Amino acid sequence: MINERFLQKAEECKPELHHETVTVPGNGEPMKAGAEAVFDFGNHYVGYLSVDFGYEGHHPDAPLYFQIQFAEIKDELNQNPAEYHGWISKSWIQEEKIHFDEVPGICALPRRYAFRYVKIKILSVSDNYSVIINSLSADTVTSAKDDQLRYPVLPEEDRKLYEVSARTLRSCMQEVFEDGPKRDRRLWLGDLRLEAIANYETYRNYDLVKRCLYLFAGTTLEEGRLSNNLFLYPKPECDFQTMFDYTLFYINTQWDYYCAAKDLETLRELEPVCETQHRLLKEYFGKDGLLDMEKAGNVFIDWNFSLDKQASGQAVYIYAMNDLLKIQKELHKDTGELEDEIRRLSEASMKLFDEEKGLFVSGPNRQVSYMSQIWMILAGVVKDKDAREILERVEKTPDAVTMNSPYAYHHYIQALIDAGLKDKAYAKMKEYWGGMLKMGADTFWELYNPEDPGVSPYGGIIVHSFCHAWSCTPAYFLNKYFAD
Amino acid sequence: MINERFLQKAEECKPELHHETVTVPGNGEPMKAGAEAVFDFGNHYVGYLSVDFGYEGHHPDAPLYFQIQFAEIKDELNQNPAEYHGWISKSWIQEEKIHFDEVPGICALPRRYAFRYVKIKILSVSDNYSVIINSLSADTVTSAKDDQLRYPVLPEEDRKLYEVSARTLRSCMQEVFEDGPKRDRRLWLGDLRLEAIANYETYRNYDLVKRCLYLFAGTTLEEGRLSNNLFLYPKPECDFQTMFDYTLFYINTQWDYYCAAKDLETLRELEPVCETQHRLLKEYFGKDGLLDMEKAGNVFIDWNFSLDKQASGQAVYIYAMNDLLKIQKELHKDTGELEDEIRRLSEASMKLFDEEKGLFVSGPNRQVSYMSQIWMILAGVVKDKDAREILERVEKTPDAVTMNSPYAYHHYIQALIDAGLKDKAYAKMKEYWGGMLKMGADTFWELYNPEDPGVSPYGGIIVHSFCHAWSCTPAYFLNKYFAD
Repeated sequence: MINERFLQKAEECKPELHHETVTVPGNGEPMKAGAEAVFDFGNHYVGYLSVDFGYEGHHPDAPLYFQIQFAEIKDELNQNPAEYHGWISKSWIQEEKIHFDEVPGICALPRRYAFRYVKIKILSVSDNYSVIINSLSADTVTSAKDDQLRYPVLPEEDRKLYEVSARTLRSCMQEVFEDGPKRDRRLWLGDLRLEAIANYETYRNYDLVKRCLYLFAGTTLEEGRLSNNLFLYPKPECDFQTMFDYTLFYINTQWDYYCAAKDLETLRELEPVCETQHRLLKEYFGKDGLLDMEKAGNVFIDWNFSLDKQASGQAVYIYAMNDLLKIQKELHKDTGELEDEIRRLSEASMKLFDEEKGLFVSGPNRQVSYMSQIWMILAGVVKDKDAREILERVEKTPDAVTMNSPYAYHHYIQALIDAGLKDKAYAKMKEYWGGMLKMGADTFWELYNPEDPGVSPYGGIIVHSFCHAWSCTPAYFLNKYFAD
Repeated sequence: MINERFLQKAEECKPELHHETVTVPGNGEPMKAGAEAVFDFGNHYVGYLSVDFGYEGHHPDAPLYFQIQFAEIKDELNQNPAEYHGWISKSWIQEEKIHFDEVPGICALPRRYAFRYVKIKILSVSDNYSVIINSLSADTVTSAKDDQLRYPVLPEEDRKLYEVSARTLRSCMQEVFEDGPKRDRRLWLGDLRLEAIANYETYRNYDLVKRCLYLFAGTTLEEGRLSNNLFLYPKPECDFQTMFDYTLFYINTQWDYYCAAKDLETLRELEPVCETQHRLLKEYFGKDGLLDMEKAGNVFIDWNFSLDKQASGQAVYIYAMNDLLKIQKELHKDTGELEDEIRRLSEASMKLFDEEKGLFVSGPNRQVSYMSQIWMILAGVVKDKDAREILERVEKTPDAVTMNSPYAYHHYIQALIDAGLKDKAYAKMKEYWGGMLKMGADTFWELYNPEDPGVSPYGGIIVHSFCHAWSCTPAYFLNKYFAD
């Protein structure tokens, strides 16, 4: 369903993109077919590349044919695109083969890329000339304003962590908050929520969050259900797929936005969209107050197909309702029923608590996982000492399903903080994201498993996004909890 | 050497390109990776293609990756680019692999192509959608004015021959007379001469010839020697290579232009350029009045590495001097020395006439070829009955080196006409170019050997030009000699 009024509001908040030209020198070497060179832009950028080609020898008398690869991390250049056969479309691989008719001259590539490294391989010239790469120039774009970036007082060792987090967010801030500027280059609700809270602590572009809230509100599925993500071109349209948790996070994103921007008008206008999600999704609970996973459908929680998501899904719902309650109270609505519901579902959640193990379990196989504990804490089902004990206990449970993504780790850090384990949160954050820093990250990655850095849920790291919204939250944590 | 004044004159004659949009419907079939379709524009065009992509299924959530091939003749589509390893750069192959981010939408390709057929193969989409090709649209360009095209009174059976010849010229008429709009897309002197005479009988764009004459005059090699061909971008610059015969043809092109356009100012201004070629190239003759092939360097004559070019080269020189004499007479210059030279070289040419064979022979091996006879006739070294007998005799000489290209055939037809064998010229022209028509030609080809249509001097027909300037002259012959 399209709501033109909401889309008009979204359009009014469309950001101006800030352009900065970044140029690196060429290699100065005459290149024949087969020659290749790698160029390093020194940091992660999103933008449009131009290559200034010169030549040596006689005037070029045949087109130049070259291959160009863009890489967010250097290891992408070692991957062979022909060997990727994963389930995500190989069209995401940032590689082109281009004929250029106007050597000497500047070849401007029409597409936008996300990269630090650029590799150029000459596929064909004529016998009469060699090509020379004079320089590469990138027209870089972001809607983040660098002069708005907050710089908290941080110990020296945390500055890199902060900068790389902020850089990640910066590269994802385009016409919307994208999930990743390499892939999917698209507005996802789950990513938006984390980008928004990181944004409030860094670039503080409130209008960009407002725009995204109106875009989702303006493009819904049947009965007003919010989709996972949406497309902007040729006109805003939401994806056909839904995820239980992502839908609910709209409510949290709305409340966070209100807390940051104090925009009561938007809160009032979009509260019915939040309430619609509540009305639709509460039907997925059984009389026992537990989430019916057959009705719930997809629940994301983490990039992990073996994770049982019942307990986490149950908790995410309560987590969202906690914020819906705040929204409705702010708007002076009658919240009696909602408070009852939260209480009822929170109590029911304790049916998932295994007294013997002292941990929440999930699904028919009573699976123990980090995520189940984390979400029950974030939902406030358990608190304080109970929460602390649970988090310490799960760490000592060897068969507990661990976390795969920075997205999952974000919630772990937040749960540690909520449980009062701030020092541990700080240490875990530095250990996890610091692992990526040690591997040379300029931006934080979509996927990082310290135990197995090469693992991919897609079938190849060549399609991974190495600048991914949901990994940008150390900037949020550092500013909100750890800066002086 | 750059002559800015001449280049300024060339710039003033730069033609306006006429744009015509030609659209063909798509195939309407939902296409997944691996699917392909061929589209037929119904005639040969030069221009810029846009593909209107739609989709079936869910909104595209990954870029479309597709391969596109352009073909002047259908058989090009059966060639595998990966199998071409010839000496001409494979960058001439009209094939691209393109990522398109904005399905549904129009993908506009930046390069110019020459084509009738377009083949699109889908390399990758996502699981959530199929791509649909709604339509293909070409922004076609030519500097030929269709409303200026002369339509001679011709028998029904000759009309196709005329139309295809004119079409060939039309596609080659761009910012200059190109040799072929697929390859080399460039101004060559040997092609220019034939395009110019065909142009006078068809589209009559005199300024385009004038422009080309000034471009060559404005961009010369050391000592003012004219190159084979020149580049326009980024600024006019001639190629480093020369060919003896091509250099000389500048003189003939100048005279032909004057005869057609009556442009005495240009004749006067460019005569010194003609005289410079005379002064430089006369040094290549020995005291015996014969061309010294070591000095002469490359002589083209035909696409045939086994052809001995001494006799032809000798004759081309005289052929050019005949026109230089006309130019200088028109300008009231003292032509005594030039007339002596022509007489002396013409007499010396008879040393190459083998009395026993009754044919001209060429080089140390006394090679007999069609081209040697043809050029001696075009040069006026032999005439009338002698010429006719030679042309009849060479046909009965089984080991005479034959002709490989339409370019060579053009001179054969002209020699038959010059020798008074007009009916035979007509029959041979129709037989040779008609052979291409029978094979479905929409424009005439760079290379055509009726005995061996697949033969290639480049190592593969995929780089052949199937719309080639030097093949357009049936329109000239029909109009000048065979129309009512």
